[in-house]
Amino acid sequence: MIDRLATMLGADLAQVDAHIEAILASDTDLVREVGQYVRSTGGKRLRPMLAILASRSWGYAGNDHTKVAAALELVHTATLLHDDVIDKAPLRRGKPTVNARWGDDVAILIADYLYSHAFNLAMESLAPRVLSVICQVTARMCEGELFQIEKRDALLTREDYLRIVRNKTAYLFSACTGLGSLLANANEQSTMLMSNYGLNFGIAFQITDDTLDLVASDAETGKQHWADIRNGKQTLPIIRTFEVASPADREDLLNCWNNGRDSERILRHVRKYDGVEYALAEARAFAAEARRQLDTLGDSEAVEMLRQLADYVVNRTS
Amino acid sequence: MIDRLATMLGADLAQVDAHIEAILASDTDLVREVGQYVRSTGGKRLRPMLAILASRSWGYAGNDHTKVAAALELVHTATLLHDDVIDKAPLRRGKPTVNARWGDDVAILIADYLYSHAFNLAMESLAPRVLSVICQVTARMCEGELFQIEKRDALLTREDYLRIVRNKTAYLFSACTGLGSLLANANEQSTMLMSNYGLNFGIAFQITDDTLDLVASDAETGKQHWADIRNGKQTLPIIRTFEVASPADREDLLNCWNNGRDSERILRHVRKYDGVEYALAEARAFAAEARRQLDTLGDSEAVEMLRQLADYVVNRTS
Repeated sequence: MIDRLATMLGADLAQVDAHIEAILASDTDLVREVGQYVRSTGGKRLRPMLAILASRSWGYAGNDHTKVAAALELVHTATLLHDDVIDKAPLRRGKPTVNARWGDDVAILIADYLYSHAFNLAMESLAPRVLSVICQVTARMCEGELFQIEKRDALLTREDYLRIVRNKTAYLFSACTGLGSLLANANEQSTMLMSNYGLNFGIAFQITDDTLDLVASDAETGKQHWADIRNGKQTLPIIRTFEVASPADREDLLNCWNNGRDSERILRHVRKYDGVEYALAEARAFAAEARRQLDTLGDSEAVEMLRQLADYVVNRTS
Repeated sequence: MIDRLATMLGADLAQVDAHIEAILASDTDLVREVGQYVRSTGGKRLRPMLAILASRSWGYAGNDHTKVAAALELVHTATLLHDDVIDKAPLRRGKPTVNARWGDDVAILIADYLYSHAFNLAMESLAPRVLSVICQVTARMCEGELFQIEKRDALLTREDYLRIVRNKTAYLFSACTGLGSLLANANEQSTMLMSNYGLNFGIAFQITDDTLDLVASDAETGKQHWADIRNGKQTLPIIRTFEVASPADREDLLNCWNNGRDSERILRHVRKYDGVEYALAEARAFAAEARRQLDTLGDSEAVEMLRQLADYVVNRTS
């Protein structure tokens, strides 16, 4: 699916890459060196793809969409770099993280460099509203992570979890599809549908991502298995288990969670209460809600791809 | 001097504060809590003052200058937060740093939050060029710090040092005075003079700052004494000493530098070769160059203040 999409959007994605490449052409060696590493270990480029598809859905024929797409991808990349410092993560997508390879200082600064250039790129040729959305989404990502830190020693509710997911992940996806649509001069209501698609898509994406941490193998995700449990990150399967477990199981789970977090034992509880299945059903519900936004938008190739992406995102194994 | 200036610019600085205050009014508790701490431990607000004075030099009567001033101060603040994480600094201005009090994760994220809102604020009502300058200056600050990290194990030349100082400090000052001037619709050449004033002012400022680390007491600077030496930061007095020391002294200094960095012993060498005096003479030369930019700009109160600031910055003791 992703490969097919990458082929279909090949020319636009090449432009996105060219914008990113230009930003990394610094006269500071470390920027170039680390920048190339970050580029070469990049992910599926879901965000640029969504931005491009959203603009194509309205027949956009300009060139600014690849700038917006690149800016959004850079914001995402910068956020991952800081997240990996914060989580002391050794691996991302199966490769050493920048913090593991070059140190926290380099990872912090390269990310700041990417943020600055992302904002500059978004501004170069675009309406102020585009940049304003990107700035606000970036600030929300920080707020999401800070709220999570604030709640580190408390048990999260489903609402807390969704607030974190919206802030940390879903608003950025929403910006991808919303700004793609805005660029193409879609009307207010159509842009709102596209934004909502991205928001629901993003929530479905993150819930799935969080459950993959519990069930997929390292080789599939390229991350360390059960890293979320070790990092004390309460994801939906865990939260659900806390909510529905018997008093005795809940007490044992709480005890595990607060003392050493024995992953095997925690997962036994999650399995007993179908925590993963519950979370995946939630993810599918958000994906269906994302699809529903597109109901009135016809059957163009771009819209059809957005529909398929909503299915893909909850059915992937990595 | 600074107090007098703060009084003179009181109304504008209050507006700067109001913009910053509004940004900190997040619904995430940690943002508000840490944000207020950062505000309450803020510095002399030299950057907003310079931006305001530059705009006043051309009789600017609008309101956007306090937004630019606030954005520039926020970029500066965010950079300090990340620098303190990178340097593992326990104190800033005599108070615990955010990283010391709340942890590296919180410091990293609050800074990202401030960056995003700074860019958003700069964009709200201003010409694209203003924001572009701020983005580029922010990226340069990262490049300056990364270049310094890249050169960590090498001896710096005076040129390396000045490249770091320009990128990390001086371009931001240059943006303050340049953008203040740009806002007031000063012509290209006048804006260039103001930018050059800020650039030279910034270099003078940083050289002085670096020498204060070697000579001022903790109580004066609020930082830890000789922190630069402990952190292996080669500042101009040290670089000068390396350059002019006798072969035997140079070897001893190099040995000290690479093994444990005994501050007392390093400072004996610096004193012997008048490293501090050399650096301060350089700072004064850059301050004089800053003043020279103002030669044709008349004697308005704002321009006179800029002249006095250029003297102040090299004669301060903290």
